[in-house]
Parts: sequence; C-alpha cells; structure tokens
Amino acid sequence: MYLTNTNTICAIATPPGIGAISMIRISGNETLETLKKITKREEFSIRKAHYCEIFSNSGELLDDAVVIYYKSPHSYTGEDVAEIFIHGSSYIQKTLLETLMDLDLRLAEPGEFTYRAFINGKMDLLQAEAVNDLVFSTNSKHHNIALNQLRGGFSKKLSQYRDELIRLTALLELEIDFSEEDVEFVSRDELKNIIINLIDEAQRLIDSYRNGNVVKRGIPVTIIGKPNVGKSTLLNAILNDDKAIVSEIPGTTRDAIEDQFTYLGHTFRFIDTAGLQKTVDKIENIGIERSYDKMREAYIILYIIDISKFDYFQFLGEIDELKTQIQNFDNKKMIIVFNKIDLIERIPPHIFDLKDYEKVFISAKRKENIEVLLDKIVNSIKDDFDLETDTLINIRHYKAFNDIKDSLSLALKDIEKNMPNDIIALDLRQSIDSIGRITGEIVTDDILDHIFSNFCIGK
Amino acid sequence: MYLTNTNTICAIATPPGIGAISMIRISGNETLETLKKITKREEFSIRKAHYCEIFSNSGELLDDAVVIYYKSPHSYTGEDVAEIFIHGSSYIQKTLLETLMDLDLRLAEPGEFTYRAFINGKMDLLQAEAVNDLVFSTNSKHHNIALNQLRGGFSKKLSQYRDELIRLTALLELEIDFSEEDVEFVSRDELKNIIINLIDEAQRLIDSYRNGNVVKRGIPVTIIGKPNVGKSTLLNAILNDDKAIVSEIPGTTRDAIEDQFTYLGHTFRFIDTAGLQKTVDKIENIGIERSYDKMREAYIILYIIDISKFDYFQFLGEIDELKTQIQNFDNKKMIIVFNKIDLIERIPPHIFDLKDYEKVFISAKRKENIEVLLDKIVNSIKDDFDLETDTLINIRHYKAFNDIKDSLSLALKDIEKNMPNDIIALDLRQSIDSIGRITGEIVTDDILDHIFSNFCIGK
Repeated sequence: MYLTNTNTICAIATPPGIGAISMIRISGNETLETLKKITKREEFSIRKAHYCEIFSNSGELLDDAVVIYYKSPHSYTGEDVAEIFIHGSSYIQKTLLETLMDLDLRLAEPGEFTYRAFINGKMDLLQAEAVNDLVFSTNSKHHNIALNQLRGGFSKKLSQYRDELIRLTALLELEIDFSEEDVEFVSRDELKNIIINLIDEAQRLIDSYRNGNVVKRGIPVTIIGKPNVGKSTLLNAILNDDKAIVSEIPGTTRDAIEDQFTYLGHTFRFIDTAGLQKTVDKIENIGIERSYDKMREAYIILYIIDISKFDYFQFLGEIDELKTQIQNFDNKKMIIVFNKIDLIERIPPHIFDLKDYEKVFISAKRKENIEVLLDKIVNSIKDDFDLETDTLINIRHYKAFNDIKDSLSLALKDIEKNMPNDIIALDLRQSIDSIGRITGEIVTDDILDHIFSNFCIGK
Repeated sequence: MYLTNTNTICAIATPPGIGAISMIRISGNETLETLKKITKREEFSIRKAHYCEIFSNSGELLDDAVVIYYKSPHSYTGEDVAEIFIHGSSYIQKTLLETLMDLDLRLAEPGEFTYRAFINGKMDLLQAEAVNDLVFSTNSKHHNIALNQLRGGFSKKLSQYRDELIRLTALLELEIDFSEEDVEFVSRDELKNIIINLIDEAQRLIDSYRNGNVVKRGIPVTIIGKPNVGKSTLLNAILNDDKAIVSEIPGTTRDAIEDQFTYLGHTFRFIDTAGLQKTVDKIENIGIERSYDKMREAYIILYIIDISKFDYFQFLGEIDELKTQIQNFDNKKMIIVFNKIDLIERIPPHIFDLKDYEKVFISAKRKENIEVLLDKIVNSIKDDFDLETDTLINIRHYKAFNDIKDSLSLALKDIEKNMPNDIIALDLRQSIDSIGRITGEIVTDDILDHIFSNFCIGK
C-alpha cells in the first residue's frame, strides 16, 4: 500500500493550523542523520529534550526547537523516531517539511506511522485501529472502549479464544492420525460446550455493536415539529450552550457529521427534519416521508411545539398519525419541547393532561431552560449506553465476529451430525482465521489499505 | 493583568482541533506535584521523555502519554514547566484540562506563558512580542525579522544605543556637578555627532516600518475590472493553486484577513473590488469610489479584462480615468490580465500595442497560466521587500522610535541653542526611556495587557 517501507518518513503530527507549538515526527533509518543535518549538532541522547537550532537546507536559521530522539526498537513505530517541537507558524511548519523532503525524506501517508508500528510488531491490528478511534473519540464511552483496545485488553481476550480453538483443533487433527485406533483426545461434549460458549460470547459482542456504533457516531436525536416552531433556533441555542461541546470533525471513519455535541459524557447527533405539515404538494409530501425515515432512525425524538399555538386535540391526532407511521414509536424516547414560553402569560389548558410524556418548557430565543432540556435528554437514556470496554465499535470487527459465529455454528452442527473430524477441524480453522483477521495475524493489503487510509496524517 | 502570578497555569499549546498528538503545557510551583498526581509516578528526570499513564481525578485511566519535566529556572517561563503529549482527541484534551483544573491549576490566559518568561527575565519585551510574530508569520521575510527579534538580535542593538545614551547623559550630568569649574567631560561636537547618527538610525527604522508592515500583513494586490470578467474565478484559481499556500488565520495582531496567500516566500493580500462599471445609479457609484480607495491602497494592481470583449480605445480611456482618480497611479505595479483565452481563436488587434504594461494571458476557468501570472506578480516586486532583519514590524515599536527621534531632535536643538546641561540631559533621558519602553525595562500594566492579550492561548 505505502510506496516503500524503507523510506524515512515525516509529517506534522499536531492538529493542522497555527498554534504556539507544532510537532513534526520523523521515522526511519535516516532519522539520526537527518537530525544531525538540520541541527548541525552531532550528539543526541535518547529520549532527552534537546534545545536545538534548526536550519533550512540553504543554511538559514529556521527556528529554535526542542528535539527528542527515540532509538529503534523503543519507539512508537519500532524504527528510529524523532519528534521536533517547533513554533507553530505556517511558515516554519511548511519550511521544515520542505527541508526534510529535500533531504530525501518522504511525506508520510495517513496512518503510516501506526502502519509501521503494526508491521514492526509494536501493536496488533486491533490496537492500530484503536489509535484512530481514540483520536476521534468525543465522549468517555467511546474513549474508554478505544483506550482498552489500544492497550491490548481486547486483543488479549481474542487471543485466548484463538488459543483455545487452536488447541481443540490440533487435538481433533491428532485424532485423525490415530483414526484407526478410535481414540478420542477431546470429548465431544466438552468440545460442544466450549463452542457454545464461544458462540454466545461472539453473539454478545455482535449485539454490542449496535450500541457501540451509536456511542461512536453519537446518539441520534431527531427534532420534529411544524414549520416555525423554532427548531433551528433551538438547535443553535443548544450548540451555543457553553456546557455542550460541539465537535466539527471532518468525517473520516464516520459519516459526514450532522450537528454533533457532547454533554455530560454523551455524544448526541442531531437530525433536523423538514417539518410535519401535511400538504397536497407532492414534493412537500416527499419531505414528510423523509422526516418519518429520520424518526425511525431516532433514539430520542424531540417534539417541538410552539406553546402559543398549542392545540391539545390536534396534538393527540398527530401522535396517533406518528404511531401508525413509525414502527416501535412507543419504544423511542420522546420529549415534548414547549417552545416560545416568552410569548404566553399562562400555560394553555390540557398540557398537564399529557401525563405519559416527558415535557419541558423553554424559550429557545432567550435561551431559557436549555440546560433543563439537555438534562432531560441525558436522563432519558438512563444507563442504556454504559458499555463494556470490549464493546464492538468497528464494522470490520462486527463482520469478523459474524464470520466467527457462523463457522462455529457450522462446526457445532457438524459435531451433532457426527461428521468426520477433518470437516469439523476445517470449520474450526475458519473461525481461527476470522479471529486472526481481526488482530491482523492474517491480513491482506486491501484490508490494511482500507484501515490506514482512514487515519489522519501524522499518526 | 493576569489574575495572579503564583498560580500554576495550564493550556493546550498545540493548534486547536483534533490530531495525532496534542500538547498541554503546565507552568508554576505545583507542576511537579501535579505530574505526580496525574501519572501516579514519583520520579521525573529533567528534560527526559517519560512514557506515562495519565489518570483523571476519578482514578480512571485517561491516556498513555509522553511527559517532559523542565526544572526552574531552565525552562521557557523560568518556572517549573511540564509538557504532556497526549493523543489529540477532543475528549482527552478536554478531560485532561478538567483534571488539571480540579487540581487547582488555572487555565492560562493568552500569552501568559510568555508573559511569565518576560516577568522572570527569560526574555525582554521585544523578544516576547517576537514570539507572537513568529507564530503568525506566513512568509520568510516576516519570519526572519521575528526570529531575529526573538533571539535578541534587535534587543542587543537597542541596548547598545541605550548604553551610549546613558554614558553621554551621565557625563553631561557630571558636568553639572562641576559647573563652577567649567569643565567639559563630553565634547559638544562628539555629542552632536552621536545624536545625529542615532537620529538617522531611528529614521531608517521608522522608514522600514512601511515595508515591514506590508510584509507582515501581506503585499496588497487589488483586483479590478468590469463585472463578469472573471475576478472571482481568478481569485479561486489562485487560492486553489497547490503552489500557493493559503492562510486563514483569524485576525489576532492583524486586521481581519481578506484572501491571503503565500507564493515563493512572499505573502500577498488580495483586495477584491466591486468592479469599475460607470453607472448613473448613485449607489453603484459609491461602489466605484470604494474601488478607487482600494486601488490607492494597492501595491500591485491586477487589471482583469475579458479578452473576448476587449476594446483597445475604451481601455485607453479607462486608464486615463484611473490616472486622474488615483494619485501616483504610475508608481503602482500594474499587470493586465487577459482572461478567457479559451473563448477566442486569435489575440484581438492592438493588444501588443500596450507596450508599457505587463501582460499575461490566462483562462481562470481552466486554470491555465495561473502560475505564469503568479510569477509575474512576484517578479513585479523585485527586491522591494528584501528587508533587513531589524525592520520594524510592530506599530508599538514604530511609535517608540518616533518618540526617540523627537526627543533626540529636541536634544540636538537644545545643544545648538547652548541650553544648560540639565535641559539637554532631560531630553536624552526621555530618549533612554523610549528605548526602555521597547525592551520592557520601563513598562506599564496597560502596555503589557495590550501586548499579551493578542497572543494565542498556550504561548
């Protein structure tokens, strides 16, 4: 995938843009020689912060910088690595990169440092993928899962499964060699029990993906309501709330992001709708159909109502309509947001008859009670997303565990059908392969390419 | 200005946003204790990269990070300093800052690290200001001036002037004590010569500010032409050219930035105009008046013409009109940009009669010859901006040198008028003060406040 692995590579590893300090990272055989050339200094202690002058190739002084040298194999990539901390101006960043390229270093591709760490055995593929998840995590749940994967927690568990399967398969294969003697090195009942346990475990992980993916992408909150009830004003009020952290990450591993924000450790993804006004206009009705689709996607529905125009019976009718249109409507969390409380003098009749619904009274325009609404949103999800640290958050892993489950189920069936050992062993080998594909013991260039191309540069 | 200088402060020092690595910097007495608490580690070697676990206050593992500890006074601020290199996710950045604040660290104000470096005598005010200029420099000229200032090149020169003035003033004042004996410790001719030299030098620096400021803000390039000749398309073509580096720095020390880009070491600032179509419409004529103002501001004028509609005699008329409207029009560099060459089959007549003008033929839409145009722009400025490294780029310094010149001129006059020594000494003391105000030997909170509030956070 990458041009060649023998190049020494370089890239800016800090976020793009201008700041007090930026860091340029170098990895490869030429690291130390490069450092000597750009600093005109001969000695570098390992892992020590050296205050150095940095020179461009024309010999001009470029900056005063801090340089750290890590010697192979004790570095991030396993190769010789240098980290150069420069003043974060666009000019210095650009000129130092140009200087390095003039010295025949190559600009690193996205994820190439981590790719090298993987190739050099510093981490397995699961850990490498976790690096990217860690960098893009916006909330504690996603963060904790990614950090656990990065530190090899999940890898260790997988390798236990794999060892167990390898042991069983080896015993089965050994029986084949002794087939004429009719020995049984592994009891069929024990084998079945272990396989059933593994299938259960795989199923638990597969099931965890649904919530894991929600946590990674943000819990979907669909906003509905008639035109002009203040949907956009509310969205702005929420996104401008100092307590909520808004992220505008360009979509890398995830879809193009709608309006995402994080509050009290949860990341939410707002989905705006066109409004629910019924019309005879065909095109507008397509809009309504789309709104229904977005409501089907929702975990939480915010139903916005202009309180100054609230009509109780009309509202009940609308709810009935939604229940017919949206399957499982009653299972979704719905909060009724009465907006524009600044326009009324008293609460209209019947509102408190709506006992079955969470209600909140706000003025989006005046930013009144926004925090109350945010707290209600957080409360509504209760502990639904208190996830285990081995939750699946990666679709590649989700697919691999489905493969594992399928081949293990096949093995189980074949055992029950008293199929020959070599058939059962084949099923088990398939499961072992599927696990190996997760951790990268078995991997193709295509898969690597796909994984690392989603990384940010410098990682 | 800052709440208190005894707090231990912290801030993200890398550019804002998400990236492979971010750095959080800590400075103050509690630095080492804080490091111990967040890493659960007891020992930190000085200036050594330590691979550490970082824990939040609730004891949860937050990240694996690299930590460097600098012991006072051998650090950027002169205080105990730590640099913590974390994975650059928004979650980790935010949570680590929260953790530090829970440990009673205070979020640093903009420029507060550099302010402390100044207060603790690690750099003078000129150097401190240069840090900010360095971070925001986008081209080599601005960069070199800022770097020279940061490294104290300019400060050294100023302190030589100051020492010389102090020596002379002291001698003059000594003469006062011996006034009854009519001795002359310093010859009036020598004194006059030195003052004249210093005035010349001050004048040279004052003059340098014009170009220095241009280099810092970008060389103004005004784009003019009738509506629909392709001004915006050209601007986009230039800004999207891979060879040009576009910067979108939020205005800090400079004005809100228009379209700025850097090419071959020069930063240009594009100023778009409304177009030059004469109309009877009053409002549109106001637009034309504004266009003239922008042309007066220009160092380079790009005159865009739709070649498919070129009319030679009309053009000559327009140029005549411009010459009456714009004083010094002939001194400005003008390049005539014939756009839309993709629409014509041959060059219209008379174009090559325009011998006095630089011409370039492009297709902005097809991005043809954009680089030729960029090269012409760079060539047109010749060596106008090959600036000395002591060029003034800061309006505060510009004003201070005007003060120095004024008080030195006054001293000179007073010497020529044979005024008493104490009057002359007073003039000289004033000049000495003005120099001290540049380097920060004499400084008020107001000035410091103004200087450091323009910094970015974390510097």
